[in-house]
Amino acid sequence: MEVAILLYEGVTALDSVGPYEVLHLMPDTEVKFVATEKGLVRTDFGMLSLSADYSLDEVTRPDILLLPGAPDPRAVAADSSVLDWVRNAHEHTRWTTSVCTGALILGAAGLLQGIDATTHWMAHAALQDFGARPTLERVVRDGKIITAAGVSAGIDMALRLAALEFGDELAQEIQLIIEYDPQPPFQAGSPATAPAEIRERVLSKYELPL
Amino acid sequence: MEVAILLYEGVTALDSVGPYEVLHLMPDTEVKFVATEKGLVRTDFGMLSLSADYSLDEVTRPDILLLPGAPDPRAVAADSSVLDWVRNAHEHTRWTTSVCTGALILGAAGLLQGIDATTHWMAHAALQDFGARPTLERVVRDGKIITAAGVSAGIDMALRLAALEFGDELAQEIQLIIEYDPQPPFQAGSPATAPAEIRERVLSKYELPL
Repeated sequence: MEVAILLYEGVTALDSVGPYEVLHLMPDTEVKFVATEKGLVRTDFGMLSLSADYSLDEVTRPDILLLPGAPDPRAVAADSSVLDWVRNAHEHTRWTTSVCTGALILGAAGLLQGIDATTHWMAHAALQDFGARPTLERVVRDGKIITAAGVSAGIDMALRLAALEFGDELAQEIQLIIEYDPQPPFQAGSPATAPAEIRERVLSKYELPL
Repeated sequence: MEVAILLYEGVTALDSVGPYEVLHLMPDTEVKFVATEKGLVRTDFGMLSLSADYSLDEVTRPDILLLPGAPDPRAVAADSSVLDWVRNAHEHTRWTTSVCTGALILGAAGLLQGIDATTHWMAHAALQDFGARPTLERVVRDGKIITAAGVSAGIDMALRLAALEFGDELAQEIQLIIEYDPQPPFQAGSPATAPAEIRERVLSKYELPL
């Protein structure tokens, strides 16, 4: 099975590395990090680069397409060559997926019309611009399109993908190998569970330019 | 605050990227990825490289030291220049930490003598070789040494670190930004919760060369 994870300048590292760490453990699976040009891509806060070993034209028919997000995905979501590649790949994928604001790239490619989808909670309104139905769940499946909520949600999505393709037991094996027994020290991981004052503070400190 | 994350050939990507995604959101914090030589480091399954912008001699007094693990950390755990760097950095750190088998690098540096510590569940026995007390918890703190269990546990550890340094509310803000509201589709993330047959299958398929 071939998995293509799109990288681009300003991508959020965990959006791609979380699912990667699950998906590469699926049987006979190769995960290919792809970008407009192969080489290094700087992540969103400038402290880390990730390598794309493949250019877009080298990976045209992935079984699974995964679009990670970024605090500002507008540049990549406006790049017609990337959007063409996404649309063409989507025609043949088994699963077309996104993490966080990667959903807005799917949307810009026209793939979310009338689709239930999610994204980072701060970007939900932007989904409607693309005709999607914003859905406040951590992982949302609509046909072969699966979208995940913000940043860390890609891990949960990837385990679901592993189960869909290879069964629950294989997904459980992967979960055990990456020891994914999460124990967050607080109940603050979603706008529904976080204390209201925490939510307000995040909204006042950060703004997604969408 | 300065955070140093050690990279080395064969490192597990999520061990470093998980905590990074939390720690770089702490106020006035720079996360520096360091390696013996600056440049690219290939991760454990050959599909992705991460960039170390700093060499060891450029980052000698980090406030937080973080050692990620690898399926086989023996080469780096036997590199005397790395162990010297770890010991010297530890003298001045506020927190010395590890994820997964990164604990075995701490152990090889002699820092786990008589210390409660954890690592990937498949590597627990190896902790005893370094005089540590293997502790089956997801995040274990003993003085200023904090060790986390396998791969994904670094996210939980990093949120605890953020809370220790900047208070619970700041850690909650970070948790909400990375939307860390984990919903694993199965109860299989630790040897205690995984079905016995899943555990046996993982043990028969994989072996850590420790």
